[in-house]
Amino acid sequence: MIGIDIGGANTKIVTDDEVIIRYCPLWKEAPIGEMLSGIEGEAAVVMSGELADCFYSKAEGIRFIVDAVLDVLPDARFYGTDGRFHTEPVPQLAAANWLASADFLKDHYPDGILLDFGSTTADIVPLSPFRELPGRTDLSRLRAGMLVYCGMLRTPVASLLQAVTIAGEETPLSTEYFAQAADAHLVLGHITPREYTVPAPDGKEATRELSLARLARSVCADTDEIGEQGAVAIAEAFWEAEKTLFRKSLERFGSKPVLAAGIGAELIHQTFGGINLNQEPGSSAEALPAYAVREVAIRDGF
Amino acid sequence: MIGIDIGGANTKIVTDDEVIIRYCPLWKEAPIGEMLSGIEGEAAVVMSGELADCFYSKAEGIRFIVDAVLDVLPDARFYGTDGRFHTEPVPQLAAANWLASADFLKDHYPDGILLDFGSTTADIVPLSPFRELPGRTDLSRLRAGMLVYCGMLRTPVASLLQAVTIAGEETPLSTEYFAQAADAHLVLGHITPREYTVPAPDGKEATRELSLARLARSVCADTDEIGEQGAVAIAEAFWEAEKTLFRKSLERFGSKPVLAAGIGAELIHQTFGGINLNQEPGSSAEALPAYAVREVAIRDGF
Repeated sequence: MIGIDIGGANTKIVTDDEVIIRYCPLWKEAPIGEMLSGIEGEAAVVMSGELADCFYSKAEGIRFIVDAVLDVLPDARFYGTDGRFHTEPVPQLAAANWLASADFLKDHYPDGILLDFGSTTADIVPLSPFRELPGRTDLSRLRAGMLVYCGMLRTPVASLLQAVTIAGEETPLSTEYFAQAADAHLVLGHITPREYTVPAPDGKEATRELSLARLARSVCADTDEIGEQGAVAIAEAFWEAEKTLFRKSLERFGSKPVLAAGIGAELIHQTFGGINLNQEPGSSAEALPAYAVREVAIRDGF
Repeated sequence: MIGIDIGGANTKIVTDDEVIIRYCPLWKEAPIGEMLSGIEGEAAVVMSGELADCFYSKAEGIRFIVDAVLDVLPDARFYGTDGRFHTEPVPQLAAANWLASADFLKDHYPDGILLDFGSTTADIVPLSPFRELPGRTDLSRLRAGMLVYCGMLRTPVASLLQAVTIAGEETPLSTEYFAQAADAHLVLGHITPREYTVPAPDGKEATRELSLARLARSVCADTDEIGEQGAVAIAEAFWEAEKTLFRKSLERFGSKPVLAAGIGAELIHQTFGGINLNQEPGSSAEALPAYAVREVAIRDGF
């Protein structure tokens, strides 16, 4: 059994002995068949890539993704927000990846709250009562604080920060796409240049020096105009803004141990305590929905 | 005498009898020579395109732009933030376009405050005392409220709005680049599809229906999930956020008549009163810095 999670920016594949994360932006040319070539057998699939804006509607996105997967894996089944597997492109397939994670984790950590911090978004899901979760759309999860739209890599810095204090001076940010989350987290030492796995806003390399320059540019400055300290202050304010969003959401669900997952699991664990699912045996917390949908398919049968 | 304003996204050219605005994104391949081909004679030039992130620094950007212009127009001179013309790529050439506008307008409207609302940014410049203006960088103008980084067309909706009230429900926005200012202003009737002169975030056409879809996508929804009314509510909240930024900046400079310029001059004039420079004889308010630097060069000589 293979687990597959097709997001807008990344496709994740979990097999018996492997976890594969591929940067595969659907808004470019949607090369899903290519991504899955060489993979065979039964597959349990979740998606969130139907929201990519190459599609006119979610229905079109779901149809496209289901067709592309079935072309390569005719025995694939698709997990929906109703908690069931489907073979057809039904509306319930939109953004069910977080529910697959919860469906798998609920038996193991019934008192916990999942915080899956990915490249682009964070899913925050209280695992009980599980019966209250199914049926939720992205829109209703945004409103409920269960979909927090910020990530470790792709979030534009100017989308979370309107202004930042640099050397005591309140400084508004440019709204241009000059710097992203990966620049802030690289500068703060939360990721290495190797873990900067997405294109930089300026198309240049992932180095500390260039990330500092991108952060400085977000206040229309060269690094030497605000100093390295100024650029670091922008990175710190960005991470502070992300933590504030997480804290506010977590508070809505009461005090529960945080289950950290996603590429930012370690950072979430350091910040909020609880359990780092990356360090639990037999889990693949960096690709949790792909892992979880496979586990659910094995547990329940298709 | 020709006036030229080389921005990051647009190049504007004013001759004796013509105003040309060309979408020419410097972050793509910087085809400045191409943009200026066929133009001859003395030219007065201002720039802000040195901030484009294809350049490693403003100094590199200034050098590139000066060289590209001199290749085609060897007699060109470049206006700087010191209020003087230069023939070399000196640091003062960075973002002096707003000062050229003020330098030209100060004699005609000494009591006014310029609000030049462009595709990407707004310049807010009190015209007296003029001696306090020279020397200001983008960074210091951001801090002073003189560079307000929002525009009529290119501003990502999610960079100004963190959340919006839709049908009474507080709804956070996706930080993805799903919708831009042009979508909001098209839906609100402030621009026509013809005036939507920049690429759409999804690469699709400029129609009311598709702009509504892009706005809806910014809360992870299809239009039918929030209704046309919901998408319009996002557009209204965005324009409200822009107006609030302008109001706050204008208040910092006391009560002065607003001189509206830029592609959004009409909208600014309707909102804040004062004088619409687009309706003044002999002015070219949609390309004000290009017009102004030409006037200053004629007035003062090079």
